[in-house]
Amino acid sequence: MLSKSQISLVKSLHQKKYRKEEQLFIVEGLKSIFEFLNSPYVLHTIYATSDIFPKLANLSHKQKKIEVSDNDLLKISTLQHPQGIVAIFEIPKNKYFNHMEIDEMTIVLDGIQDPGNLGTIIRTADWFGFKHIICSENTVEVYNPKVVQATMGSLSRIQIHYQSLIDLLKSSSLPKFGTLLQGNNLYETTWPKTGFLVFGSEGNGISEEILQIITHPLTIPGSGNTESLNVAMSAAICMSEIQRNILK
Amino acid sequence: MLSKSQISLVKSLHQKKYRKEEQLFIVEGLKSIFEFLNSPYVLHTIYATSDIFPKLANLSHKQKKIEVSDNDLLKISTLQHPQGIVAIFEIPKNKYFNHMEIDEMTIVLDGIQDPGNLGTIIRTADWFGFKHIICSENTVEVYNPKVVQATMGSLSRIQIHYQSLIDLLKSSSLPKFGTLLQGNNLYETTWPKTGFLVFGSEGNGISEEILQIITHPLTIPGSGNTESLNVAMSAAICMSEIQRNILK
Repeated sequence: MLSKSQISLVKSLHQKKYRKEEQLFIVEGLKSIFEFLNSPYVLHTIYATSDIFPKLANLSHKQKKIEVSDNDLLKISTLQHPQGIVAIFEIPKNKYFNHMEIDEMTIVLDGIQDPGNLGTIIRTADWFGFKHIICSENTVEVYNPKVVQATMGSLSRIQIHYQSLIDLLKSSSLPKFGTLLQGNNLYETTWPKTGFLVFGSEGNGISEEILQIITHPLTIPGSGNTESLNVAMSAAICMSEIQRNILK
Repeated sequence: MLSKSQISLVKSLHQKKYRKEEQLFIVEGLKSIFEFLNSPYVLHTIYATSDIFPKLANLSHKQKKIEVSDNDLLKISTLQHPQGIVAIFEIPKNKYFNHMEIDEMTIVLDGIQDPGNLGTIIRTADWFGFKHIICSENTVEVYNPKVVQATMGSLSRIQIHYQSLIDLLKSSSLPKFGTLLQGNNLYETTWPKTGFLVFGSEGNGISEEILQIITHPLTIPGSGNTESLNVAMSAAICMSEIQRNILK
């Protein structure tokens, strides 16, 4: 059985305030947890119910595995339908991305608010083999359980950097692409090997100060029936275009 | 003030069972509601709070507009953050798509379960100007409030057909594309003017019986890091490829 204080620690991590204080976050589901275990992320504790616990037999982290009742797992899970296993990992120190280390077209997110959108963008970036995503400081926190869940383990492989976008982008002379309602035809874009590709927030698009330093405005040609595409869809379409260009 | 029976009617429509019984569904938000009003959908009633109600002044549906208190709106809304306006529209009769009426590459969904995914696919299809989406009978119901919300009004412009996919696809000699883990390179695909493009469910992909009649299996080339892409992302990427081909 879990002690009250153990339950209260994990439950506190449902909230941003305590994730920040403890520098810990939650991952759920066996597949995702194994992907984090096979990554540089540092495990704090795994809690699993009796049907899942035997699957952890090969893990060396003996002192960090705790078998719990279904009822206790229900208490600590963030999910409506818990998957029998909850793990806590350490939040790594935020590392600023230096424009000198760029070696790919690099995704930049300017104020994404929806956890599902951020999570899916990370998952799609992983599919296409991107290594970094740079987030403005007002982008939703990547260790929000809904973001982690939506990445389906991909967060363990993509480096996420929170920092001032204006400082980063101004320090680089590389092309800065951005998706807008009025830009050049995406399908006629020639992609450089390195550069930045900025996506704006769900409600407001790219912020005013970043707009001013976009060198290559892009538009995904549409029918004109609807005002906008969901940002995760725009990101998927653009990442696919970059991939298409790399494979050419 | 709304009567108890009015409140209970709208609240019942949060559930599939009663939507089916009443043949009514809910749309929320001024922008989406106006898009449905400008479409063949038939209005049943609009409920709006005092700050939104004046914006309905130009509507001719006098008998169908009801001003409600914030508190009553909260009761009938399906949203965590209601937008001051809830409308009920009639569910149109499901119309089978006949393979003879095909005039575009046509999206087919085989068992999509997540309302957000279905909604976003509809929104993306609208962006690119697709007119029809065909859903297997086990696809999530399109009048689920979460689907309607995620379409952001696009549902008012896209015709959705629920029917047996096997009957439809077997009756047509046109190419049947499908996204799989092992298929031909998406970027090397030559798209015909008409044909079907099938996407499978989140958990299981395309069902066994449909797989057997796919003539053109496709794969979105990835890095191999992650097992799968979210189906709404795959759909967005493929629809963009079709658009690219049309514009060529």
